[in-house]
Amino acid sequence: MTSLSDLPLREDLRAEKAYGAPQLDVPVQLNTNENPYGPSEALVKALGEAVAETAGTLNRYPDRDALALRADLAAFLRAESGVALDASRVWAANGSNEIIQQIVQAFGGPGRSAMGFEPSYAMHPTISKVSNTRWIDAYRAEDFGLEAERAVAAVQEHRPDIVFLTSPNNPTGTSLDLAAIEAVLEVAPGMVVVDEAYGEFRRAGTPSALELLEGHPRLIVTRTMSKAFALAGARLGYLAADPAVLDALLLVRLPYHLSSVTQAVARTALSFRDELLGYVEQLRTERDAVVDWLRGEGLEVADSDANFVLFGEFADRDALWQRMLDRGVLIRAVGPPRWLRVSVGTPEEMAAFRAALQESLKETQ
Amino acid sequence: MTSLSDLPLREDLRAEKAYGAPQLDVPVQLNTNENPYGPSEALVKALGEAVAETAGTLNRYPDRDALALRADLAAFLRAESGVALDASRVWAANGSNEIIQQIVQAFGGPGRSAMGFEPSYAMHPTISKVSNTRWIDAYRAEDFGLEAERAVAAVQEHRPDIVFLTSPNNPTGTSLDLAAIEAVLEVAPGMVVVDEAYGEFRRAGTPSALELLEGHPRLIVTRTMSKAFALAGARLGYLAADPAVLDALLLVRLPYHLSSVTQAVARTALSFRDELLGYVEQLRTERDAVVDWLRGEGLEVADSDANFVLFGEFADRDALWQRMLDRGVLIRAVGPPRWLRVSVGTPEEMAAFRAALQESLKETQ
Repeated sequence: MTSLSDLPLREDLRAEKAYGAPQLDVPVQLNTNENPYGPSEALVKALGEAVAETAGTLNRYPDRDALALRADLAAFLRAESGVALDASRVWAANGSNEIIQQIVQAFGGPGRSAMGFEPSYAMHPTISKVSNTRWIDAYRAEDFGLEAERAVAAVQEHRPDIVFLTSPNNPTGTSLDLAAIEAVLEVAPGMVVVDEAYGEFRRAGTPSALELLEGHPRLIVTRTMSKAFALAGARLGYLAADPAVLDALLLVRLPYHLSSVTQAVARTALSFRDELLGYVEQLRTERDAVVDWLRGEGLEVADSDANFVLFGEFADRDALWQRMLDRGVLIRAVGPPRWLRVSVGTPEEMAAFRAALQESLKETQ
Repeated sequence: MTSLSDLPLREDLRAEKAYGAPQLDVPVQLNTNENPYGPSEALVKALGEAVAETAGTLNRYPDRDALALRADLAAFLRAESGVALDASRVWAANGSNEIIQQIVQAFGGPGRSAMGFEPSYAMHPTISKVSNTRWIDAYRAEDFGLEAERAVAAVQEHRPDIVFLTSPNNPTGTSLDLAAIEAVLEVAPGMVVVDEAYGEFRRAGTPSALELLEGHPRLIVTRTMSKAFALAGARLGYLAADPAVLDALLLVRLPYHLSSVTQAVARTALSFRDELLGYVEQLRTERDAVVDWLRGEGLEVADSDANFVLFGEFADRDALWQRMLDRGVLIRAVGPPRWLRVSVGTPEEMAAFRAALQESLKETQ
């Protein structure tokens, strides 16, 4: 039998492992920051109809520039942020992973580097390495925050071609001040990517980096429909940036990368935004409640502007993770070594989480 | 206003132009090798139902390994070729472009090279370059064929890490003998990719490279549902190879790259294979007829095993292309400089093509 080591794999990939959270079939899945609220019956019906409508022309290639979808996404961002955006400043792809890949393909590459502030989203370094871009680890403060001074110092030291700033950060939930992002924009020699995959969950008063787009043509703000729009299964990521950035991405995107079906599904979900963003409100409330509860239990909890909460610290987090799993609650052992992350689910799921955690913690004592 | 030249784009992309055929709204579109037969009403209905069924769980990530779809694709290939294949030997992605990209990301990269035999599919070099892999042009014979001796000589001279063999070839329609592919496999130091995007259209008696998979772990055969399955808008490409090749691709694929919706749409189309492959039969007949007709008109025509036909030679092909467009028939000026390519459409579309070509050619004289 042939094994991978018999094949002429790229040398620098030989030590790598395939990325991915364990996919286990348990009653309470709180491990991948999915939105627990599936589409309503009305949305399910509308999605079926939208796809049936586009299906008659599936023999033809999709609109390779996805103009109608990009206009809809721009309208959503405009309504959310008040920032003047149109289709010329919004780009879409198969999940924000493909968005990140296109950015690295255009602005990274051999001899170039990308940097992020750990702990953060693992796909930034993974995609950078696959795209032959040297990865530089910088670090957040102990409270997982990132102050302007620390960020600027790291950028000035390493002069990366791409800086990734994740806000709210995954897996910590921490948001960045616009002042820190602006300070990075001042000194960064290349592109600055603010990954706002969880942006819609931020607490009242927390601004979006969209507000900085005007006058900063090297800023890219990425978003996804996976979380707030409860569409992880449909794979739709997008970004807002200067139109010149889109010109660059056109050079590296795969032709017809976004299917007609994906475009139709995403547009339909956007037309149900009131329903879907209503669930975001519920999740924010539930998130704040679980943060308070965990603190009440005497645990350390990172401030969260996302739909998940990082809590600790545990001498043996893997043992605790397993005890939770034994009780039918799947959370994630990710990020800093003594912490665990729980996605915010329905009230029932969070009740199960709280009960399982209390029992599991008692078992340890 | 910011322009692309103000941004820190990768240096080697500065001279590149975005890829893509002109998208023009004309009555007879025979330029991108689309299947002219849209899904039947029954299939459209089934697609809407399948998506509505999966839509209820779109808040969850898709099966990131697309196991059910891969089993269905394997069953199709098994039925077509008689080759023993199962899900462990079949991989799927968003169009064969993404399949190609994953192959180059895993087996190419800085310091490595990929080679193809021109004229051939433009995305092989384009994707290789974007993936930081040096591209080497080799050449087909004057009749667009590729004999074992010529192919082997090129491989031995350049020793590329990846060899692309397109069969049937785009844009010429020419198939390769298995003997030539076997000869390349004998001497190639790296991976050998046989791109069979148009494989289902090959003439009776033309074999598929699938027959060579057994015993050749460095062989990858790529296919697509865009053409034979009339599903260009749904973006589903796939490949068959040794399971170890899939292990390599798992290291570079984006997590959850293939949406639940795409998986459901593709599986539904596969369940309608009899209907869809019936159209393939019609298109093969129409293809053979247009080849004969063009030859009857005194033109040079490349043998075609695909759903398009390359014909020539014209001192000014762009002028002829424009005269065809003026008559509402969009074909493609692609490949060797004195030739034009026409996709095979419906009998009505081909009648329009023949009439427009006769008039356009008269105009030249």
